[in-house]
Amino acid sequence: MTRGKFHKMHGLGNDFVIIDTRISPVEMTNARARAMADRKTGIGCDQLILLEPSDVATVRMRIFNQDGSEVESCGNATRCVVSLLGQDAMIETAGGMIDGAYHENSITLHMPPPRFDWQDIPLAFAMDSAAMPMAWDELASPMAVNVGNPHAIFFVDDIDAVDLAHLGPQIEHDAAFPERVNVNVATVRDGAVFLRVWERGVGETRACGTGACATAVAAIRQGKVASPVTVHQAGGSLTIGWEPGGLIEMTGGATYVFAGEADWDDFG
Amino acid sequence: MTRGKFHKMHGLGNDFVIIDTRISPVEMTNARARAMADRKTGIGCDQLILLEPSDVATVRMRIFNQDGSEVESCGNATRCVVSLLGQDAMIETAGGMIDGAYHENSITLHMPPPRFDWQDIPLAFAMDSAAMPMAWDELASPMAVNVGNPHAIFFVDDIDAVDLAHLGPQIEHDAAFPERVNVNVATVRDGAVFLRVWERGVGETRACGTGACATAVAAIRQGKVASPVTVHQAGGSLTIGWEPGGLIEMTGGATYVFAGEADWDDFG
Repeated sequence: MTRGKFHKMHGLGNDFVIIDTRISPVEMTNARARAMADRKTGIGCDQLILLEPSDVATVRMRIFNQDGSEVESCGNATRCVVSLLGQDAMIETAGGMIDGAYHENSITLHMPPPRFDWQDIPLAFAMDSAAMPMAWDELASPMAVNVGNPHAIFFVDDIDAVDLAHLGPQIEHDAAFPERVNVNVATVRDGAVFLRVWERGVGETRACGTGACATAVAAIRQGKVASPVTVHQAGGSLTIGWEPGGLIEMTGGATYVFAGEADWDDFG
Repeated sequence: MTRGKFHKMHGLGNDFVIIDTRISPVEMTNARARAMADRKTGIGCDQLILLEPSDVATVRMRIFNQDGSEVESCGNATRCVVSLLGQDAMIETAGGMIDGAYHENSITLHMPPPRFDWQDIPLAFAMDSAAMPMAWDELASPMAVNVGNPHAIFFVDDIDAVDLAHLGPQIEHDAAFPERVNVNVATVRDGAVFLRVWERGVGETRACGTGACATAVAAIRQGKVASPVTVHQAGGSLTIGWEPGGLIEMTGGATYVFAGEADWDDFG
């Protein structure tokens, strides 16, 4: 029997298929994750999330991108998982442990401290992660930060003027980032951050939780804004708090869309 | 109680959410159809299909495009509906009655005869529907035909060279087509038709059932191919039979992807 249940949820328009493998076991491969994520012939999602038993947390979360590759962290997905569990929970991910506080209409996540050392992002060689000596057309000198996954943050005057479909893949695949990188373009206005994100392995999305964290950290670290700061993206807004040396605190919503049931063998 | 069940299916990669309102009643509006069809925050589909009781057929089928507008016909969806019913069935649509023969791996539909009179397509004024005296860049003199919905068919040397993202919306919204039009670009090679379709209200899709019918009829009528003819699209192939004056016979597959359950009120 290979039938199982899944949940479809989204956080700020970043959408997920979530399978609780403790209830519905599934043999997952990169090819199967890609087939499930296909929006026409599969279930359709930005990321496929597997919940597995954990020895050290409430649950272990694995994350597969639309292209089938497995990634470490996804803040929007983590909020959805805490909302689905319906209780305060500790979430184990490949990107670190995440402490989630459950409220009916908003979830607060306490995520591991950001890392700035070039080896931790990782960058290909030693350079100043606060202002990398690199440029791609008008995008220059990003701050690089790892918040469970690697991010490059560019502060620009007008985020809508950036050709992210063109520059996103170039920067994502630049040899400077041996594990590729998520590309954030942001501007600060009236004490808030406005952000677009090109997600590694996905493309531009309506909202990226770890992108909001990484960009808020960069803006706070550079003194552009005070903590906590609201980060606005096309799909909605998050509030991010961080003090140097501390955990990242992210607060935002999660939406349940539908429950589904499928035969896993239909996905190759 | 506003919870209900739905089915997700696809025909050649043209994908549908199907709600059997006889089992799961739903109050449908154009705005709700659009919200359900949204691939990030809704269920996600090219078209939303409602099955309703019929006085004259096995079932009545209503079809909503991704933009929420209601349309008359969709061949790929009709095959999925017959496959879902699991038996030979008569399907009532706003575009006419469709007789469906059920086999496990292929469905044959007998669809109403094509119409060529300019009032029936409809065109804005009297003109020769076999070779309309109009051109949009390199696309010129289409045949216009109504197979339950209006189509313009252009035979070209290389369908991949056509900028359908640019010309599709121009032709769809041209004043010559008062109910807009589906745009087909096709070529004939080795006795078969190769086709791309810009669907009215949707955009380019991997496969369009009525587009395959309309284009096969146009090719047979112009003596370019013999009936029955295989029509190849990116999402797969259909076999279309037609003799002048007769019904259109379409044979192809339908794929069940998953069963879902949602609260209709979550979609506005």
